[in-house]
This record gives sequence, structure tokens and C-alpha cells, in this order.
Amino acid sequence: MNILTVISYLGTAYHGSQIQKNANTIQNEFQKALYSVLGYETPIKACSRTDTGVHASCFCISFTVDPPIDPDGLCYALNNELPGDIRVEGSRVVDDDFHARYSAVGKRYVYRVFNGRFVSAQDNGRVYHFPYSVDDGKMTAAAETLVGTHDFSAFCGKKGIQEDMVRTVKRAEIVRDGKYLNLIFEADGFLYNMVRIMTGTLLNIGTGKLPVSHIEDALRTGERDRLMFTAPAEGLWLDGVIYGFGDANSFKR
Amino acid sequence: MNILTVISYLGTAYHGSQIQKNANTIQNEFQKALYSVLGYETPIKACSRTDTGVHASCFCISFTVDPPIDPDGLCYALNNELPGDIRVEGSRVVDDDFHARYSAVGKRYVYRVFNGRFVSAQDNGRVYHFPYSVDDGKMTAAAETLVGTHDFSAFCGKKGIQEDMVRTVKRAEIVRDGKYLNLIFEADGFLYNMVRIMTGTLLNIGTGKLPVSHIEDALRTGERDRLMFTAPAEGLWLDGVIYGFGDANSFKR
Repeated sequence: MNILTVISYLGTAYHGSQIQKNANTIQNEFQKALYSVLGYETPIKACSRTDTGVHASCFCISFTVDPPIDPDGLCYALNNELPGDIRVEGSRVVDDDFHARYSAVGKRYVYRVFNGRFVSAQDNGRVYHFPYSVDDGKMTAAAETLVGTHDFSAFCGKKGIQEDMVRTVKRAEIVRDGKYLNLIFEADGFLYNMVRIMTGTLLNIGTGKLPVSHIEDALRTGERDRLMFTAPAEGLWLDGVIYGFGDANSFKR
Repeated sequence: MNILTVISYLGTAYHGSQIQKNANTIQNEFQKALYSVLGYETPIKACSRTDTGVHASCFCISFTVDPPIDPDGLCYALNNELPGDIRVEGSRVVDDDFHARYSAVGKRYVYRVFNGRFVSAQDNGRVYHFPYSVDDGKMTAAAETLVGTHDFSAFCGKKGIQEDMVRTVKRAEIVRDGKYLNLIFEADGFLYNMVRIMTGTLLNIGTGKLPVSHIEDALRTGERDRLMFTAPAEGLWLDGVIYGFGDANSFKR
């Protein structure tokens, strides 16, 4: 029986999501909890890797179990074992060939910026504090130029250089909610640090340090300059994983 | 120079707000930070006492300084000294006779209930998980009967018994936002545990364990039964403090 589990987590206390020896990661914790519940080892497949300090309101993990189990009962059991900053929110039986990463057709990230003067206790560690005055209109216009199928080499961290740098961005929106600025990105996939570099670039376009045309130029030349900075991990949230049968958020209970 | 400071905090790690010897409290932390910044002791006056585990998105503290200081600069300096779960969000000069507690004409609490099956990592410790099916309409009808000037003896924890148990509730509303149920209470003042007991009572009215008329009966008789339970601290948020010149939330920067 193949199971898909939807979790949320605060990345603050973890060295990223991926399994690592001698480091506390989201998947290490999940693997440990799963072993406690099942009583045997089963390999887990995660929808993506997130860096140290990055959060997720929707992250997917799939794995097979034998004998079959009740998906709801599994959620309760896992939550009993997991620390409070990692929570299972839903779980369901999926086809045998389903894979949390390879079956995903899209992902959505939200980069949360606090654009006021003083961050609240509630938001501490969960937003990027960027107190400078920005022009939302310029940011929106620039974000629109990200949409489409492009070579995103200019928006990739050095560690992420690979053969295929082409991705299709379906959505890049700036949504202001008072002092909050939410940057929403949806794509078929993202390169290493891509959302954080797009965010840093858009913020510097917002302040006027870079022209709106900078993104089109960077997409054309593939070159990244120091003003296209990598916004910090703490503002980044994996917000949705899209499969053939829908957004994994809809599997939350 | 008399200063009013607006802070927010997560109560999870603290033994309440009030100054205590040999215990970590919000006011202990604030007092310590203030001493570091000013270099001398000055007594602080807090808008209210909150219990262990209770949070505040808006909590007020006043104190005098001599020589005068810049209120904005003070915010930055205090935030440098304070832990991340206590944040200063604004500060302003007020009249010499202003007192954070005695000058308050009203307070607003929000009790946050998560009414779904599984709490997210983001909400862990910040909401009360009440997964049972409730009738919002019954809760709203019952909440309306709390509004007005009443003797709230039936809604007061044992430790809080005092001479004057009369309070004026100006607002008692149930606001549903998907799986979230926010109970909003505004009054000239609240008795010990009053919001948590009103919440527990309303939830048991929502499930049908108590009739809608139970609140009117309790206000009349002054008697509290075990179904009028005290909802846990973790869902309770002090959300606003009202002074003659407005809601302290408006002083946030």
C-alpha cells in the first residue's frame, strides 16, 4: 500500500528537509517517527529538498506500507511521535507508481516579507524583515516578466548548476496585505535558491536599485549580479504541491 | 518623560506576564532589557496580567524616563536586548498621569480555536485544538447574551474572587474562518480566567452539551458547573488595549 502524507513544519530548528547523517533534519525526524509507528523501516520519498530555516505549510512524503494501515490512524500516530514543529495534516492511499517528487507537476512557494518597521513576536523567524519603502507596482510589473518558459540560470545558486536550467513559471504575483508583502511563485519546478533570488531581485526592483527591465535582461544574458541577492531562508514557505489529482493542500483534514 | 510601549509576545516559554522572583516572566524580561538600555531602574506598569502560556499581539507597558529619549530609538534598543518571542512594536510619549493599566478603558481578547482534525506546525501552541463539531449559530446566539453589564461571578476562576464582579462586555462574537473559530471579547475589564471560561462554556453550547440559555442562567444564579470549563491558555490572545486616545494597536509601527 502506497501512502501520501501531507505535513507542515517550521524549518527554524532544522538543517533542511533532506536526510543527513549527524544532523537534525525534517526527514530524519519523520523517518524516526515512521519507524516508531510501523515497527519496520520503509524508504520515504519527499516532494523536494528545502534548505536550513525554510518552512513548509504543505510538504509531501510518500512511502509504502505492508500490511495496509488506516491513513487517518497513521496521522494521529505520527503526530504523537513527531515534535510540535512538524505536524502531519493528512494522509491518503495513492497508486502504487505514485512518487511524492516525480509525480508532482507543480509547486507553489510563498515568500513572506514584513515591510513594516517592527516585526511582531508571532512573525519572528517566519518572515523576512525588509523595512525599506518599495514600489509595489514596479515589483508586480517585473514579476510578470518571470512568467513563462525561460532558462533561469541567472536565478540559480552556484550549488545548483545543472544541465537543464529551463523552467516554466506559471505564476509570479505580489500580494500586499498591509505591512505584509507576499510573493507567490508557481512553477513546474524550481532551481536551487531560485525563489529566494527572484525575491531578492524583485525587492531591489521595488526600492529602485534595479530597473524593472533587469529581470528580462537577466533571463536573456543568464548573468546574475550582486543586487540579485538571495533573500534569507526564514521568509520562504513551500505552500503547495500540485499532483495530477490536485493540490496536496486539499488532502489536509 | 512618560512612555507607553506596545509589545507582542508568545507566552509559551513564560510563567505569565507579571513580575515574579525566580521565574521567567514577560515583565521580568522587559524590565531586564529596559535596564540594559537605560542604565538605571525605572518601575514598569503593565496593562494587565496574563497567565502562563497566554499570548499577546498587543500588550502595553508604561514607565517614566529621565532624561528624555527618542521613543523609536528605544524600540530598536529594546528589541536588541529582548528574546525573539517578545517584540516591541511601537512606543510613544504620553501624559505624565498616564498609566498602562489604570488609563485603559477597555480590552479585547481573541480566543483562537482550531476546529479541524489536525493542527498545523504554524499553529502549534498558538490555538486550542477543539476537533468536535459545533453549531456556530448556537454559539453566536449564546455569545450575544454575554453582552451588557452583568455580575460575572459564574465566569470567574476561584483565585479571582473579589468584591466587584460586575463587568460590561461590549462585544462577544464568534467569527469562523474555515477550520478556525475566533471568539472575540471586548469589555471594560475581565475577571480572572473570564475569557477562558466564557470560551469553554460557548464551546459546550456549540456541541450541544449545554443549552443556549445556559449563559443567561449562569449570569442570574452566579453558579458555575463543570461543563463551563476553562479553555486552555494556549488559545488565548490579548489582542487590543483601548485608551482614551484609541486602540494601542494603532501605535504599532
